[in-house]
Amino acid sequence: MKPLLLRALHGEETERRPLWIMRQAGRCLPEYRKLKETYTFEEMCADPSIACAVTMMPMERFELDAAITFADLISPASALGVEFRFDPGPIIAKPITTAKEIRALRVPSKDEIAPEVAAAQRLIKPKLKPDQALLGFAGAPFSLAAYLVEGRGKAGFPKLRAMLAEDPVVFGELMATIATLSARYLTAQHEAGCDAVQVFDSWGGLLSLRDWTAHVRPHIVNLLQELRGNGVPTIFFANDAPHLAASMAELPSDGLALCWRNDLPGLRASLGEHTGPNAETGTKALQGNLDPAILLAGPEKTRAAAKEFIARMPKRGHIFNLGHGIMPEAPLDSIAALIETLREEA
Amino acid sequence: MKPLLLRALHGEETERRPLWIMRQAGRCLPEYRKLKETYTFEEMCADPSIACAVTMMPMERFELDAAITFADLISPASALGVEFRFDPGPIIAKPITTAKEIRALRVPSKDEIAPEVAAAQRLIKPKLKPDQALLGFAGAPFSLAAYLVEGRGKAGFPKLRAMLAEDPVVFGELMATIATLSARYLTAQHEAGCDAVQVFDSWGGLLSLRDWTAHVRPHIVNLLQELRGNGVPTIFFANDAPHLAASMAELPSDGLALCWRNDLPGLRASLGEHTGPNAETGTKALQGNLDPAILLAGPEKTRAAAKEFIARMPKRGHIFNLGHGIMPEAPLDSIAALIETLREEA
Repeated sequence: MKPLLLRALHGEETERRPLWIMRQAGRCLPEYRKLKETYTFEEMCADPSIACAVTMMPMERFELDAAITFADLISPASALGVEFRFDPGPIIAKPITTAKEIRALRVPSKDEIAPEVAAAQRLIKPKLKPDQALLGFAGAPFSLAAYLVEGRGKAGFPKLRAMLAEDPVVFGELMATIATLSARYLTAQHEAGCDAVQVFDSWGGLLSLRDWTAHVRPHIVNLLQELRGNGVPTIFFANDAPHLAASMAELPSDGLALCWRNDLPGLRASLGEHTGPNAETGTKALQGNLDPAILLAGPEKTRAAAKEFIARMPKRGHIFNLGHGIMPEAPLDSIAALIETLREEA
Repeated sequence: MKPLLLRALHGEETERRPLWIMRQAGRCLPEYRKLKETYTFEEMCADPSIACAVTMMPMERFELDAAITFADLISPASALGVEFRFDPGPIIAKPITTAKEIRALRVPSKDEIAPEVAAAQRLIKPKLKPDQALLGFAGAPFSLAAYLVEGRGKAGFPKLRAMLAEDPVVFGELMATIATLSARYLTAQHEAGCDAVQVFDSWGGLLSLRDWTAHVRPHIVNLLQELRGNGVPTIFFANDAPHLAASMAELPSDGLALCWRNDLPGLRASLGEHTGPNAETGTKALQGNLDPAILLAGPEKTRAAAKEFIARMPKRGHIFNLGHGIMPEAPLDSIAALIETLREEA
């Protein structure tokens, strides 16, 4: 049996729309917070059996249609020889800033890139029901580069934008290297049991459409085409990039996930119905995009907002999700209400 | 003589396009950093003669066409009885979170709202050349509310978004109160000598077009119409809101300033030429929007990027600026190169 999420991703008619929640593994779960008293975030990511346990926590508590692997976006950077620690976000020991440093980066074979992630996935997949999908993920070139160049999370990632202004050729070489890294890393995750993978672009929206199209998009296309060639189903997620959404809808991914700022029903109307695995310019599945802040308003408001959204968003080819990661302070009864609403309505 | 910026704002043909730089007063200037060794940010904002001196610092060092008053977005909140301190951003002693607290807010008369700001402006205006404009500013309802409700700067301001989900009526009352506050505050600034005022919407782009149109835009319209009725020329600035730009272009402001993510030449083409003071649905001046990160790449890259942008952006009705506040680490020779390029080319 093909997992529900995969069927929706490929445009099949489904009995209901699948639901998963970005950042569902960890964060807002008390059992995760308890585990964090014993292990650091690094330790949990590094140990496949703990990463498996954290990935499974929301699956045991809630009826969700996909498990998303517990890992960090920065993990594959180790394979490039980049050292980092967490405090609490990733902090790079030596940020990559020169052409020489960028040209010295070597992408190893797929089995050498954060192998603990694939190891965790081999443990997770057998624990899921046949109808549940296992998702892997990696960072999009711009978003992973943002950390490598800036050295840490920083609003606007000015150093990466300055690098693009200063030397677009060197910037492009960094994008290409990370696209290769993510393609190999995600292919390994698919081989380890992931039904689909999500490419996270948290920061690409920092660029204008003009700059993004010229300097970033080609590398995303290469990454997605490589994955398509390897038979890996893909969802491309972009946060805070509504000005890029129309162009992103033409990327060679199977699905496009967008943050809550975007008009997902409007995009569906302009793309047309999703009736089958897409060609490069065809329709595709859309994922999202309830404002995660709504959950803070409690279960009744969450239920009402989810119903209202479902009423506007055609079911076929829709994967329900929040428009961004669930907030640590989201009440569990709001999550339960969301899941219940989807089970009733969709 | 009418200042150059005002003539451009009103769509007159000008000898060159005016230039000012968001956050030009303070931040990247060594004379400001030196002053900060003696005074705290609060002390500088509270003392009109110091605020005047800081406002004039960039005017003395560079040939700029407008001075922007040195003040903080949060200053007028004092008049609502809201207490705050800086560390380094504003921290509200008791965040406003309940309907009762929102309904208890009273907006005093215009001369009681941060009067130290108007006092500084009365000192600044006579120091400017006749062709230089003095700009005042205030926060847009959503952006000022973001601080009042969240209590401090926090990525995404989830509490304000949750308030909108929880009780749109109460949320609307808060928006209305702040719109009244900002209208009075800006009118007082105009009376103190400001040639135009800029309304800063740093966070409105956190909402979808649908939510923004229903719950925020009407209050911005009220604010801008009130100012128009009082004869105050206005520029509305929105950061990180390209999905709202088309609707913002129809706001009753004289100018629209947008961050670097936006395609300003494209917007000019779709709005048409700015040939006179605008009616509500008419054309308007556009301000912006070079990526401030470009300055980090040095004077030659800054010069090239400014030239390239000028070549694409019609001169009439254009006020040159960065797309966001100048970064503290922006090199002074990049600023000089930008100003020189504008003087030569525009």
